[in-house]
Amino acid sequence: MGKRVIIIGAVAAGPKAACRLKRLQPDWDVLMLDQDDLIAYGGCGIPYYIGGDIADESELRATSFQMVRDKRFFAAAKGVSVLTRTRAIAIDRDQQTVRVQDLDTLQEEELPYDALLLATGAQPIRLPIPGARLDGVYTISNLHKAIAIKERLADGKVRKAVVIGGGAIGIEMAEALTGLWSVETALVEMEPRLLPGIVDSHFAEMLKHHLEENNVKVYTGESALSIRDTGTGAVAGVQTNARSLDADLVIMAVGVRPRSELARAAGLDVTRWGGIKVNQRLQTSDPNIYAAGDCIALTSLVTSRETHAPLGSLANREGRIVADNIAGQPAVFKGVCGSFIMKAFDRCIGATGISYEAALFEGFDADYAIASPSDRAHFFPGHAVVVLQLVFDRKSRRILGLQAFGEMNDFISARVDAAAGLIAQGGTIEDFGTLEMAYAPPFSSAIDVINAAAYVADNLCDNRLRRVHLNHFLRWAENVANEPDWLVLDLRHPEEAAHYVQKFGKERWLSLPYDQMRERYQELPAGKTLILICNAGARSYETQVFLESVGIRDTLVLCGGLNVIARMGVRWYREA
Amino acid sequence: MGKRVIIIGAVAAGPKAACRLKRLQPDWDVLMLDQDDLIAYGGCGIPYYIGGDIADESELRATSFQMVRDKRFFAAAKGVSVLTRTRAIAIDRDQQTVRVQDLDTLQEEELPYDALLLATGAQPIRLPIPGARLDGVYTISNLHKAIAIKERLADGKVRKAVVIGGGAIGIEMAEALTGLWSVETALVEMEPRLLPGIVDSHFAEMLKHHLEENNVKVYTGESALSIRDTGTGAVAGVQTNARSLDADLVIMAVGVRPRSELARAAGLDVTRWGGIKVNQRLQTSDPNIYAAGDCIALTSLVTSRETHAPLGSLANREGRIVADNIAGQPAVFKGVCGSFIMKAFDRCIGATGISYEAALFEGFDADYAIASPSDRAHFFPGHAVVVLQLVFDRKSRRILGLQAFGEMNDFISARVDAAAGLIAQGGTIEDFGTLEMAYAPPFSSAIDVINAAAYVADNLCDNRLRRVHLNHFLRWAENVANEPDWLVLDLRHPEEAAHYVQKFGKERWLSLPYDQMRERYQELPAGKTLILICNAGARSYETQVFLESVGIRDTLVLCGGLNVIARMGVRWYREA
Repeated sequence: MGKRVIIIGAVAAGPKAACRLKRLQPDWDVLMLDQDDLIAYGGCGIPYYIGGDIADESELRATSFQMVRDKRFFAAAKGVSVLTRTRAIAIDRDQQTVRVQDLDTLQEEELPYDALLLATGAQPIRLPIPGARLDGVYTISNLHKAIAIKERLADGKVRKAVVIGGGAIGIEMAEALTGLWSVETALVEMEPRLLPGIVDSHFAEMLKHHLEENNVKVYTGESALSIRDTGTGAVAGVQTNARSLDADLVIMAVGVRPRSELARAAGLDVTRWGGIKVNQRLQTSDPNIYAAGDCIALTSLVTSRETHAPLGSLANREGRIVADNIAGQPAVFKGVCGSFIMKAFDRCIGATGISYEAALFEGFDADYAIASPSDRAHFFPGHAVVVLQLVFDRKSRRILGLQAFGEMNDFISARVDAAAGLIAQGGTIEDFGTLEMAYAPPFSSAIDVINAAAYVADNLCDNRLRRVHLNHFLRWAENVANEPDWLVLDLRHPEEAAHYVQKFGKERWLSLPYDQMRERYQELPAGKTLILICNAGARSYETQVFLESVGIRDTLVLCGGLNVIARMGVRWYREA
Repeated sequence: MGKRVIIIGAVAAGPKAACRLKRLQPDWDVLMLDQDDLIAYGGCGIPYYIGGDIADESELRATSFQMVRDKRFFAAAKGVSVLTRTRAIAIDRDQQTVRVQDLDTLQEEELPYDALLLATGAQPIRLPIPGARLDGVYTISNLHKAIAIKERLADGKVRKAVVIGGGAIGIEMAEALTGLWSVETALVEMEPRLLPGIVDSHFAEMLKHHLEENNVKVYTGESALSIRDTGTGAVAGVQTNARSLDADLVIMAVGVRPRSELARAAGLDVTRWGGIKVNQRLQTSDPNIYAAGDCIALTSLVTSRETHAPLGSLANREGRIVADNIAGQPAVFKGVCGSFIMKAFDRCIGATGISYEAALFEGFDADYAIASPSDRAHFFPGHAVVVLQLVFDRKSRRILGLQAFGEMNDFISARVDAAAGLIAQGGTIEDFGTLEMAYAPPFSSAIDVINAAAYVADNLCDNRLRRVHLNHFLRWAENVANEPDWLVLDLRHPEEAAHYVQKFGKERWLSLPYDQMRERYQELPAGKTLILICNAGARSYETQVFLESVGIRDTLVLCGGLNVIARMGVRWYREA
């Protein structure tokens, strides 16, 4: 006999589960409900809709074959019943019923289920600061908000905007506003840098510099304390702990929180931060109730800890797993690496696994290796520098994470995807060193950047490579008195080095090209710590090894080299 | 005490091993020799040099920091001695010496070694047909040949060309000739299709169609029998078994053979096809002699058989492994998946692992799953169809290979790279179904094509999806009498279907849109095999499941749908 399945939430995990379930069990009764009237949309497309890349919101709700995924579509094409503007208000686990309320008539009803899926998603956090509910202050919580923002922009009402929150959505919104609409946009992030929790600070700095190059004002390490009023209930600006910013529009994108009130009220296990707990089959603590999507706690495949990974891509995969399990065909979802990718104007930034900072915090014997070569064959037109970092555990030699910053194309997504699969399997430095990356000059280098970074990791682990940390070097460059014994040895072409020799003086910054080292190393002054510098770091390492062989041991390599410093927009570098 | 290491061959594996060895053991004496005077070049860049993407051959020999990697460079920068125009003519394994000959003075010398690396590369095969040595007939064997071809083109001497061989180099050369130089180019391939041994025939057909769209004449299943003469010793054309083609230039690109004569003469183990046998540490049957690069036999990580994978990328990785082992730091090279990627005009084709045809041949319970969705979010501008196939073993559910055809960007390289790592670890359909591909609308879809193809594989394996093979369908479309009971059910919008209904007639091609099926299935005629067709295959599968639930069981899905047929350039499809 057919079963009755109720699905609460109809954006990503819900529809995926509903449709798969009807394919596995066409005779079952699948009912999906949502408090909104707009359902089954690509929420991740909202910044691109606002930025004009997507003309109409209905495109976000359409299938690839141009049918709008509304109530009628789900009934006709999928055989799935949908109740919109219907809120689930309570679950009776003993009776196996859900109490729902029609938001228009306010009538309530008890709906029986054999299996229940909670796909209630996540909710943007609204900062509890004065003015947070003024007209013109938005969170990106659903398509209605997106439509309202775009109308406001189209009406020419927005000249200045402030985005609060330097995570992915905040940055994408800042691009959308400055791009198509030429709105003067400021981005405020409380943490000392962008993308906190996702990338390490030097990657965040490269991203910040690129945003600034594109006229986004970025204020990191600043908290929004209040939102100012025009006096007539509309937004006038944002007051941070450091400045006052004018704004006709404020976007709050300070993170999301799982929507798990219903689960908690029903007595299901929920983490402290609100993620619904599930097993690998995505069952909650009640085996008849499943949960999927932005409302659940997932297991990190790197740390084995609970983590929150609110992404449409995961929600869809999870929805399918739930359908399989409800249909009686066991399937498991093992966890997430935490893959991340983002467009920011002309650049792309991506990551998977955990950052160096997170790895230290987690108690790993953590280290990181940076490489900054050409993305494709350096003789192929259009090649560009990519900066890629592997995070690893020195003891086990396991790779824990990858971060990359480069041009806006699919190059970084390839490296993130290749790494995620391997990290999930516990891949080591050796696995990454021999990882078979497809090669032809238009696509990659004979030694791919991912292999190159693994080689650096190998050399670091085996203590063949002695490195100066980037931040340490940058502090010295700001004030050379910090390290009175340091002398930069610039291994690049003398013409490339000349400006810096002039700026820092010969006793601080010496030019000696890499290919003359074997002839001229005796010219090097004694009693100095030599900081070996080139563009990508490879020549520096090679020089370190050579100098060691002739008895000059006090040397340190700047891994990733000046390619990283250039992309961070460091002032002394740019001005030299 | 320092050791003496001799490296024979100075293109890719040789230089990589030499430089790494000097970094590990700076005091050792490393001598590299090559019979050519041009060394350490990116041979895979030759088609792009000829096609004008790369202006000067020296760019193929330069480092990323613009130093030309010649003899002087290796001595000054790397501390590696190089003998060019020097041929190794014999190895005395007992004495541990190599006899070398200076190709200018013809003087011979015995050089002692502690360890030896054979990095002798591979040699293009020259077909043993009349005229193979006429002026104007080239193989792409080294940089000198490339320079000669480009000079001939630059001198305006070439109006028509024939490329013999439809592998990667042949295709890249055909693009180079038609692209910049507007040479009328014909490509002749003996096998019934392009890229034999790399992709299955439907992928080869998509590639062929795109070459033809770009004015390359492609003749598959034709053998070059002789090369015609102008009467003055120059090439005049190519005679195949089917036609006579005029040509001022003939490129022979019919594959390469390992250069292993030296190894064989020294009594080292060599495969029947000439690959030098090595263990995982890349030692030959003589533990003091290593081999790396295009001259060796590698282990396939899919079939565990010996295979030949002549690629600069592998040569470099292998060179590093050899250096580690010689330096006393054990390292292993486990084998290859066989990753492949190629630009062809505006398209990209890629593969890893083995093809369906190869998997059948190898005795797997082989099957394949095709998906053809949008490469990125279908609401994101610039998205395009990608066709991706997974090859799998039905019994073990292990993924054996991947093939993809799509736009010329890095999208396919991402899927090949992600798959290669996982295939090497024995990944299954389930691993590919949950593979975490980084998601944001500009880069991918919420359900990535690689996940989508895994879902199709899952449905095939579990016999939920019953499929018609593409070739079977194409034969029917050529002559519907082949399957008198077949009726196509076109699930697309009626306007999309109309031309085909008209062409084939209603009794052969019926339009019934997907979202009207639940209302209208009773209109379907009885006693027919319904061939379910849509653009990508997803609607067809969904319809199959629904029809089954209402008792209509005689249905077959065309996986990948009309997206594949359109890209193959099938005539009836284009003309309808």
